[in-house]
Amino acid sequence: MAPTKARQAKLKAMTYENAGVSIEAGEELLRTIKPMVRKTFNDRVLTDIGGFGGLFDARFPEMKFPVLVSSTDGVGTKIKIAIEAHRHETVGQDLVNHCVNDILVCGAKPLFFLDYFGCGKLETYIAESVISGVAKACEENGCALIGGETAELPGIYLHEDYDLAGTIVGIAERERMFSRESVREGDVLIGLPSTGLHTNGYSLARKALLSRFTLNTLPTLLGGETIGEVLLRVHRSYLRPIQSLLERFNPGTDIHALSHITGGGIVGNTSRVVPGGLALEVDWDAWPRPPIFKLIQETGKISEIEMRRTFNLGIGLILLVPPALADAVQSALSECGEKPVSMGRVIRKT
Amino acid sequence: MAPTKARQAKLKAMTYENAGVSIEAGEELLRTIKPMVRKTFNDRVLTDIGGFGGLFDARFPEMKFPVLVSSTDGVGTKIKIAIEAHRHETVGQDLVNHCVNDILVCGAKPLFFLDYFGCGKLETYIAESVISGVAKACEENGCALIGGETAELPGIYLHEDYDLAGTIVGIAERERMFSRESVREGDVLIGLPSTGLHTNGYSLARKALLSRFTLNTLPTLLGGETIGEVLLRVHRSYLRPIQSLLERFNPGTDIHALSHITGGGIVGNTSRVVPGGLALEVDWDAWPRPPIFKLIQETGKISEIEMRRTFNLGIGLILLVPPALADAVQSALSECGEKPVSMGRVIRKT
Repeated sequence: MAPTKARQAKLKAMTYENAGVSIEAGEELLRTIKPMVRKTFNDRVLTDIGGFGGLFDARFPEMKFPVLVSSTDGVGTKIKIAIEAHRHETVGQDLVNHCVNDILVCGAKPLFFLDYFGCGKLETYIAESVISGVAKACEENGCALIGGETAELPGIYLHEDYDLAGTIVGIAERERMFSRESVREGDVLIGLPSTGLHTNGYSLARKALLSRFTLNTLPTLLGGETIGEVLLRVHRSYLRPIQSLLERFNPGTDIHALSHITGGGIVGNTSRVVPGGLALEVDWDAWPRPPIFKLIQETGKISEIEMRRTFNLGIGLILLVPPALADAVQSALSECGEKPVSMGRVIRKT
Repeated sequence: MAPTKARQAKLKAMTYENAGVSIEAGEELLRTIKPMVRKTFNDRVLTDIGGFGGLFDARFPEMKFPVLVSSTDGVGTKIKIAIEAHRHETVGQDLVNHCVNDILVCGAKPLFFLDYFGCGKLETYIAESVISGVAKACEENGCALIGGETAELPGIYLHEDYDLAGTIVGIAERERMFSRESVREGDVLIGLPSTGLHTNGYSLARKALLSRFTLNTLPTLLGGETIGEVLLRVHRSYLRPIQSLLERFNPGTDIHALSHITGGGIVGNTSRVVPGGLALEVDWDAWPRPPIFKLIQETGKISEIEMRRTFNLGIGLILLVPPALADAVQSALSECGEKPVSMGRVIRKT
């Protein structure tokens, strides 16, 4: 039943807009991000932006047994650092690269990505920064940004806060996938450097550092960078070096397994690809621990055990390689411009 | 550098746990949801829960040109109703069914789903309720719940607040997909009833209703149900009736297009599948408008125009059908237990 004219005149008409959902802001955002998103498209994308669903060619005639490999993730409380530092360009890249690495360690290369951006009030400049980072990293990883959702949830998110999640779908040839069944006693752990915390341990890092410093503090230990800059360093993608490695070495026989070092640290994550009966022996002094981790540990008085199970400590990806091939794999990685470190081995459980 | 023993003794050791991330709660949750998640698996799922990526068989030998159709969505501020009503079982179903409908209107059937649950502090009973709803709806729609992420973000979400997003990936035969190019002048709009607001317009509905009522109010108009119950009714999936219809009618020739009525309402969404030069003529009196919409409109003094562009008003899915087949399609839908309504047609733009 429609209200009477008299009552309508007395009360400010209630609209979706003044209930906290800005349709215009959403349309403005769509206009701005459209060209960035379109740059990620390739000839397998069968859709345009704004449809009900993203369409992607699912024919893989060159493959014997194609397997879709997918993963959903967020960037954790690193988002809080981005919000506090008013720097929103990097978390989108963190999100994509994290997801790329998660499917890479299964043996998959990215096909497409979809993002979810939830906020209290859509500030287009923030959403634009974040999503341009998503698009940038998608382009870098040859991954089509085929869909996404921007949601305004006044009352769930405060002020300019937001959360960000994403889903990647990639493809792998089944017989070229990594599996922990290949891992043997004696396998060498070859680590590739991280750029910093990547996307893990930010709750602890914030608690440790921000009770004493601000994001603008320039501690001597960090050699000229602010805490905010170091904490916001982009989670790197390991797609290029691993893809190039797999042109010369076979997954399963030459490279037994890969491990992406996220929450749970080096041992927590690498144990997931080690079969029962075997364990890891990590040489914790094999690589220089980046100063940011020393700063977090000192400032927060955090035990070494806690540091190891929370942070990547400078290693973002680990390859498990038979000892006979360890040198060749390290050389090949060095040729790609990587700085691989031999950092331990697989041992029998005692 | 490790802190000295003396200083360690003075300060409470800082751990990831007391920085607000409960590893144990996460593990408890994983244990509880594992059996529910596993029930959604089928023989195309090549993975187990807890790996870096979810694996799904990508061979579609029975198809000529398989197309992956994907969509990411959230449930909007319906989540706020669930939180305020302390009823968390239904939003997970809303999320999945919404996504199922979004790819269904392209002509795709679901393959797999991944969810993202972000919260301030992981209350396992809440997360379990939500994710069990996700799993239930996945099972009902024959969709494998192949991955997910549960993230604790203290400082982004308050108290027991959370947000929920999900991504669906489905498959369609390219030549059996719907496209707006098939839509013709004279096509009949056949609407299928919604169960309520589905997942759209909750910001406006809350503002209108909750300034005067509580979620426990039993307005005469709702005939024995509380406002909370009616607002939390599950967004239904239209997969079964449409799949059964497509056994007898062909997409493109017999059924020209489908439209899922979400934010933007009947005209906003259905216009997306109507080619340029054509427009919609909706007979707004063709179906009984459910009482909840009358209550929202009256209480909030909302204009009819605003109601139409915000809410589904009782119609959740619309089929665009050539006039010669309209009766046959309606009969077929009625045989599936649906209550289809002829609610307008496609006209030439004036």
